[in-house]
Amino acid sequence: MKKTVALTADRPTGKLHLGHFVGSLKNRIELQHECDQYIMIADTQAFTDYFEQPQLVIDNVLEVAADYLAVGLDPNLSTIFIQSRIPQLCELTMYYMNLVSVARLQRNPTVKAELVHKNFGPSVPVGFLCYPVSQAADITAFGTEIVPVGEDQLPMLEQTNEIVRRFNRIYNTNCLKEAHARLGKTKRLTGIDGKAKASKSLNNAIFLSDAPGVIKEKVYAMFTDPHHLKVSDHGRVKGNVVFEYLDAFYDNAEELSSLKAQYKKGGLGDITLKSLLNDTLQELLLPIREKRSHLSRKNLLEICMDGTQKAETVAKMTLNEVKKSMGINYF
Amino acid sequence: MKKTVALTADRPTGKLHLGHFVGSLKNRIELQHECDQYIMIADTQAFTDYFEQPQLVIDNVLEVAADYLAVGLDPNLSTIFIQSRIPQLCELTMYYMNLVSVARLQRNPTVKAELVHKNFGPSVPVGFLCYPVSQAADITAFGTEIVPVGEDQLPMLEQTNEIVRRFNRIYNTNCLKEAHARLGKTKRLTGIDGKAKASKSLNNAIFLSDAPGVIKEKVYAMFTDPHHLKVSDHGRVKGNVVFEYLDAFYDNAEELSSLKAQYKKGGLGDITLKSLLNDTLQELLLPIREKRSHLSRKNLLEICMDGTQKAETVAKMTLNEVKKSMGINYF
Repeated sequence: MKKTVALTADRPTGKLHLGHFVGSLKNRIELQHECDQYIMIADTQAFTDYFEQPQLVIDNVLEVAADYLAVGLDPNLSTIFIQSRIPQLCELTMYYMNLVSVARLQRNPTVKAELVHKNFGPSVPVGFLCYPVSQAADITAFGTEIVPVGEDQLPMLEQTNEIVRRFNRIYNTNCLKEAHARLGKTKRLTGIDGKAKASKSLNNAIFLSDAPGVIKEKVYAMFTDPHHLKVSDHGRVKGNVVFEYLDAFYDNAEELSSLKAQYKKGGLGDITLKSLLNDTLQELLLPIREKRSHLSRKNLLEICMDGTQKAETVAKMTLNEVKKSMGINYF
Repeated sequence: MKKTVALTADRPTGKLHLGHFVGSLKNRIELQHECDQYIMIADTQAFTDYFEQPQLVIDNVLEVAADYLAVGLDPNLSTIFIQSRIPQLCELTMYYMNLVSVARLQRNPTVKAELVHKNFGPSVPVGFLCYPVSQAADITAFGTEIVPVGEDQLPMLEQTNEIVRRFNRIYNTNCLKEAHARLGKTKRLTGIDGKAKASKSLNNAIFLSDAPGVIKEKVYAMFTDPHHLKVSDHGRVKGNVVFEYLDAFYDNAEELSSLKAQYKKGGLGDITLKSLLNDTLQELLLPIREKRSHLSRKNLLEICMDGTQKAETVAKMTLNEVKKSMGINYF
């Protein structure tokens, strides 16, 4: 039986961290057994706002691939590929760009939020404004049926499906498929500073490849409860990053529950908790780091090449259908 | 010695007419002996505003190719190719889109004028807004050095050169070349109604492939001098379309000059003039139509395929250089 097609992607602008792990990687490790899973290293998209820092993007392509393999994504089950190596995605983007108005892109809530966040002002590159169109190309190229996303990404998927419907209507075809969001399993992880989502750019994340000493340092620097000064003080669990991470990574729910009660009542020190979290994370990340250390550049390139070749074959078929529908398959 | 590279293009939204003939085709027939000339049938660009009329674009691709050959463009001297068959142009466009702001495109005088003309309003497709970026891809892909254009197209070339300079600076390369306009030889031809530039959409043009009866009908319907009612009346030469066409197509300058004098003074009828113009145009267009009638679909496809293959080889080299400069030539 034909498996459902799923697509996910990461922009190679940094190594992956624990936020990616709980937010999407764990999910993908399961998904690869259930779906025909495509995982895209979105270098072309990264260039829409990192075009002046090419080295950062380039360097992280293989780092992200290494993170994928290290956490257990299996290239025999998941097609890992590099966006810029699939020229069909650019061709699809060009044709889809005719079906989307400038005003529609400017109204897209995700784009709007990012424009503010990135502080582009009127100098926003047209490539950045168009990245939802490019995403529509990515999604449709592989006949994607489900896209695991966070709520904030729903407008992007809506944009894709609008393009799909418009294309199919204008060119009287059903060659493009609408994709569905798979919400729910995606979680967010707060940064160690307790201020925002863990992210590379805010420098508040624990990376999957961090050395043991770095992990420990970050855990011990974590934001807890600023009013919990003495061990005997009452402590707050809510907003306490150490507890958030224990919730995400510590398996013994019963023990965790009793630790929370104790912390609230007073008598449990931050150091004890941080030591527990450190042990937990060291245990989680040791085999990932180990596996990562055995991956050679040659290895990673080969895996990316194989995946890219497989992905291109599928994208080529979609593009052929698209061109046939438009009538531009002259020879 | 390496020849200078020239690029020109036509959007396949109609057959070519006398306006194209004096405005660019005659020029290209000379240019092909002097330059390494690329001639692009711009179907992808036509789709930026004709995306809802695919059949119109598709049907005219080979019609335009037929017009090229009929007027004497020689596929052994000029590389005639179809834009949508060169995927590298889409890839280049995607990378260049990061180097151009939305505001910059909206300020482009040519785009601004066309937005008004086409009455898009806020629903302008982003593909249309971006067509100057796509033109930059077309121009740079072939290492184009000269672009024969009308004055109204100068802002497009300026946009291309801005992209070239920005790309070369950011990626520390000189792989992209600035292109220069070749102004001067391009002329405009008024429509037979005397109202505007001859164009397919205004239905006021004489097509290169028009049948003798149609040519005659159009010539006899031409706008002359509305106050020149009787043969003996004084006539106006300025704004008189018949004289404009005689200026463009009648070789005997001395005789034409005396006809103008006679017309101004009175005593020369419109019918006499129109008969002369009709004979002139019939003589010009007969061999073109003849040559056109011997071109089979198979013939035309083969010529387009050959040209496209040659053009793609060159575009591929440019794209490779571009990717190498950006550092995204992973394997």
